[in-house]
Amino acid sequence: MSDLKIRPAAESDIPAIVALLADDPLGARRESPDDLTPYTAAHRRIAADPQQHLVVADRDGQIVGTLQLTVIPGLSRRGATRSIIEGVRIHADERGGGLGTQLIEWAVAESRSQDCQLVQLTSDTTRTDAHRFYERLGFTATHLGFKLQL
Amino acid sequence: MSDLKIRPAAESDIPAIVALLADDPLGARRESPDDLTPYTAAHRRIAADPQQHLVVADRDGQIVGTLQLTVIPGLSRRGATRSIIEGVRIHADERGGGLGTQLIEWAVAESRSQDCQLVQLTSDTTRTDAHRFYERLGFTATHLGFKLQL
Repeated sequence: MSDLKIRPAAESDIPAIVALLADDPLGARRESPDDLTPYTAAHRRIAADPQQHLVVADRDGQIVGTLQLTVIPGLSRRGATRSIIEGVRIHADERGGGLGTQLIEWAVAESRSQDCQLVQLTSDTTRTDAHRFYERLGFTATHLGFKLQL
Repeated sequence: MSDLKIRPAAESDIPAIVALLADDPLGARRESPDDLTPYTAAHRRIAADPQQHLVVADRDGQIVGTLQLTVIPGLSRRGATRSIIEGVRIHADERGGGLGTQLIEWAVAESRSQDCQLVQLTSDTTRTDAHRFYERLGFTATHLGFKLQL
């Protein structure tokens, strides 16, 4: 494989990121790649928040993966700062090729450099391949993840 | 019951909040109420981050509950902003009295006022009473929650 860069997502990356979000069994139902307006507004909110780290995996100018890392200070666990990984997506052509591991390893290294003591994420109960993937990387499924749509 | 206020946590509330965090089957093993230094530093990080809303439930000057709400902008789900609830604790004397419901309802209302489209939280798999509580409030356990200690 050719050279890979993991770098902050620019506004010009939005179409490629939204294509990744939509190319997914769950994402296909809830994304709108034909209307990028809400994504552009959201990208500005993300860029304005120093605790948000939205990155893309860029292979020779093609966006092949993305994730968002959020750093959250807190009181529990002796004032531990934790990070949360959201929106992990890998281009179909790259699945099974190790890119997911590289992205999560980037997120873990970035979390360490931000003095986090804990990295956490949730994964839809239907994504059983993803669960095995995270367990291989050392994560443990100690929690249930609850959601409420507003 | 007497008058209840849900208000931002002040630095002077730290001893009471840490006592709540430690008075818990899981928290007892991981908190240090005899050394508040790391909590004071963490409270300053929280207070400096406009996306963090650490609140206490104050009944006539006694701190009887706490939670932390974090607002996270994102690209997925058409640029949805979500909120995450962490560190929900209710004083032993108040359990079963409706205070947990009031705190979560505060968090949901605050999430709406911050234009969130989704509220999420994770709960340790051993806290089965908490799972029923969140389901009664309309949350659904659609995800597994993974953690990695650093």
